[in-house]
Amino acid sequence: MNCLHCIVVLFLSVKLQQVFGVWPMPQRITQFNEQYFLNPLLFAYHYAEDSSVRSGCSVLDAAFRRYFRIVFPDFADGRGFSNTWFEPKPFTVSVSVRSGGCDEYPDEGTDESYKLSVSQGQAVLKAESVWGALRGLESFSQLVYQDDNNSYFVNKTEIEDFPRFSFRGLLLDTSRHYLPVHVILKTLDAMAYNKFNVFHWHIVDDPSFPYQSHTYPDLSNKGAFHPVTHIYTQSDVRKVITHARVRGIRVVPEFDSPGHTQSWGKGQPDLLTPCYKRAVPSGTFGPINPTLSSSYQFMNSLFKEVTSVFPDSFVHLGGDEVDFKCWKSNPNVQAFMAKMGFGHDYSKLESFYMESIMNITAAFNKTSIVWQDVFDHNKPSRAQYVVEVWKRGCYLCKVRQVAKAGLKVILAAPFYLDLPGPTHNWVRYYKVRPLSFKGTEQQKKLVIGGEVCMWGEYVDATNLSQRLWPRASAAAERLWSNEEQTSSVDKAIPRLQDFRCKMIRRGIQAEPLFIGHCRQEYSGL
Amino acid sequence: MNCLHCIVVLFLSVKLQQVFGVWPMPQRITQFNEQYFLNPLLFAYHYAEDSSVRSGCSVLDAAFRRYFRIVFPDFADGRGFSNTWFEPKPFTVSVSVRSGGCDEYPDEGTDESYKLSVSQGQAVLKAESVWGALRGLESFSQLVYQDDNNSYFVNKTEIEDFPRFSFRGLLLDTSRHYLPVHVILKTLDAMAYNKFNVFHWHIVDDPSFPYQSHTYPDLSNKGAFHPVTHIYTQSDVRKVITHARVRGIRVVPEFDSPGHTQSWGKGQPDLLTPCYKRAVPSGTFGPINPTLSSSYQFMNSLFKEVTSVFPDSFVHLGGDEVDFKCWKSNPNVQAFMAKMGFGHDYSKLESFYMESIMNITAAFNKTSIVWQDVFDHNKPSRAQYVVEVWKRGCYLCKVRQVAKAGLKVILAAPFYLDLPGPTHNWVRYYKVRPLSFKGTEQQKKLVIGGEVCMWGEYVDATNLSQRLWPRASAAAERLWSNEEQTSSVDKAIPRLQDFRCKMIRRGIQAEPLFIGHCRQEYSGL
Repeated sequence: MNCLHCIVVLFLSVKLQQVFGVWPMPQRITQFNEQYFLNPLLFAYHYAEDSSVRSGCSVLDAAFRRYFRIVFPDFADGRGFSNTWFEPKPFTVSVSVRSGGCDEYPDEGTDESYKLSVSQGQAVLKAESVWGALRGLESFSQLVYQDDNNSYFVNKTEIEDFPRFSFRGLLLDTSRHYLPVHVILKTLDAMAYNKFNVFHWHIVDDPSFPYQSHTYPDLSNKGAFHPVTHIYTQSDVRKVITHARVRGIRVVPEFDSPGHTQSWGKGQPDLLTPCYKRAVPSGTFGPINPTLSSSYQFMNSLFKEVTSVFPDSFVHLGGDEVDFKCWKSNPNVQAFMAKMGFGHDYSKLESFYMESIMNITAAFNKTSIVWQDVFDHNKPSRAQYVVEVWKRGCYLCKVRQVAKAGLKVILAAPFYLDLPGPTHNWVRYYKVRPLSFKGTEQQKKLVIGGEVCMWGEYVDATNLSQRLWPRASAAAERLWSNEEQTSSVDKAIPRLQDFRCKMIRRGIQAEPLFIGHCRQEYSGL
Repeated sequence: MNCLHCIVVLFLSVKLQQVFGVWPMPQRITQFNEQYFLNPLLFAYHYAEDSSVRSGCSVLDAAFRRYFRIVFPDFADGRGFSNTWFEPKPFTVSVSVRSGGCDEYPDEGTDESYKLSVSQGQAVLKAESVWGALRGLESFSQLVYQDDNNSYFVNKTEIEDFPRFSFRGLLLDTSRHYLPVHVILKTLDAMAYNKFNVFHWHIVDDPSFPYQSHTYPDLSNKGAFHPVTHIYTQSDVRKVITHARVRGIRVVPEFDSPGHTQSWGKGQPDLLTPCYKRAVPSGTFGPINPTLSSSYQFMNSLFKEVTSVFPDSFVHLGGDEVDFKCWKSNPNVQAFMAKMGFGHDYSKLESFYMESIMNITAAFNKTSIVWQDVFDHNKPSRAQYVVEVWKRGCYLCKVRQVAKAGLKVILAAPFYLDLPGPTHNWVRYYKVRPLSFKGTEQQKKLVIGGEVCMWGEYVDATNLSQRLWPRASAAAERLWSNEEQTSSVDKAIPRLQDFRCKMIRRGIQAEPLFIGHCRQEYSGL
């Protein structure tokens, strides 16, 4: 049954009862008119008898506490007290997880599917893993609504749900502007509401190096905007990873090289290539020097640290926008090119460097993600890596090309939303069709997902949330939901408006879509 | 002496001492290397012997308290304590006002000029009026900076300053989205930092009527988004007017008619024109019905209230974008047109209506501002009114035309910043040259100022500050400062970056201009 139809029908018939359902749209959802009061005093989450995980499960214990506050915001805040809270009707959300534990990290193969059945007095949530249970708890939280007396209700509902893509990422850039840890944590909260599951941490770049390495402390001492106030300590990084984990979110760090490394050079002498002007060093520096073994030793030590600090099986190596000008100017690089038989093709030098770095991370048992430039210059050899497609133009042509080469693809190109646009350009992200290229089923399966990119040129803590939400929510639905069931922008509008109001209620500063208001918009502002 | 030069020179020579001066640029400013410690414990504002106003002056007493906290944020917050605070060097800001009292409202003729002389142990601030003294206190606050140990300093400085334009407005639209009172108050704070002096309150429009009228309470009871949570009570309005007054800001309300009044119709039956379809009323409504005397009686009573609630001598009557379709469809309107001899020229009907409303406000001793549409349809008769130019295209042609007709002009067209753009499009606002049209000196004097317009389609409390600042700051400098002295964008960049950091420090969520950081950016976020 097409759930969109039921919602529209219900919306017409019950009108004032705000049954907008769930964003992103579940694969199958059926909502009924039957409505149940929820009394916060008689409401509880608990583990079902048949669940493989029980009380003491770190992920779900924390989720139960968190979602109680989200489901009953007035009650949790001690504001307003409704008569219906005294209705003697208990309600239980019974959670059952089939397999797996509670202490792992979500990762590539994570099963996020769940089933949710809401009926008189109870909701039954069944999931393969705790990560699926988290998705189901989020969906349940969105089903609860308040009437004009602030009483809480949920309607009879059946949901069967799983993500379309396994990789649903969001990139934050903490080099062009530093983002305080609490801002990253809040973004992780909003990601969980949107069922994003990968935080791609573009942690360092040309302008600053805020990651405090214990192997190379000078990188942030000298390369951060400020060595004390504008860094991420090891404890900060752990806090981010933990906050993400309990929300079912992976943290994939990016240490982009050989380009985009100006800030690295400040704390690591001889790492960058000295540029030459008329046969003498000009005093400026280019990409990492690919001709020195010390460069690879450094990268090996750095990635030894990074791959142990970040538990995810993926690590992003960057590899984009390498400017060959400086390499070309340097006589030692020229000599190295000759020795290696690269002729004048500097993309061979770039490939040589990237292959070496990928070998390093492979030795640490990590899968490398690289920007598409690496693929363009380095038709796949033995190495397996994931290609992130980011360039405009016919991005699906590139997706097809990568998939044909047998490599996994992440699609970022149509999901750049760092440049401001009117909120209504969320439609642009919503209309993306990531698999509409000619290819075999096998090739389409290589498209593991997509990623919203929030670059930092014009974005810092002052405007991050507003620029992300609700526009990134459009991408979230595209990456989670069935494309046919969510192809209508008109049907999405009231649902997205409602979801935006929910985000506001939860303290996320999501921009308005258009003229109007949220009933409870100003409790969170 | 051209102050831009001194700043640049000083910046090169003292480099680390952050002497960026004042935004918007004063008419004359000279800054010297000589640097004075400021010890918050031995710092005081006081009234000079020769001042016409003394302790007990509501405007300045409050300003002294406010600016102490702004000048010494760490001290006021009880954070960090620097050794230099124990230096036994007192510093006094001595304020002298020549004339006028403390209990009036700023208005059209207000003299905002001031002179500020900062030297060893004291700053001497002399102003014509308390309003000028406020501008000087703001400038002084921007001269104070902190070194790496958080000690406070000010450099020897001489300023002689006055605004280029007397009307430097900012429009907020509280109809398309409701803005909570605290958000309006915060915007008034930021306006004062930018030396804006008119808050144009576009308080009602089609989508909602949040103004709670005591004469017509049904207007907000039925026309607001919510009759309790989304309204401005009389007490709210007084709070806004008072907050604005003590910052030298006028509050000019706009009750836009005859169009843009859909929300009015909900609480005031028979006010709007019934539209007809095939000779029967269609159930929809158009602009205010200009054919009924009841409409004018209503407007008279409403403006009787409005002109007594809002003390400013200006009131904005709107008059823009009147759609004639509904009037044309209505047989009673057609009959009225015939009776009045207007033929089929509905702009004559519009003029008839607007003249009547202007007569009403004139009877209450108010000067009317109207959008340019009124001027376009109603070449000036006896009535004197102020024309606000808002349409794109050759806006200076329109400014010239209005000035040639002998009417005062406010320029809004190039200062629309409700639609998002990258922050760097502040340059667009900065480059506006409001007087670069062919006209006599007398005609140019009729351009009383300009106005930043922040319409509400895509803006509410979640993103207002970010969208306003620092882009509106570019307009602020254009309207206050000497145009020749502030013609260079390159010279403005570091100053605007510094000023944006100051706003952040003061808790205003101003967007970043580009890659980088503020030293103290995250105390306010």
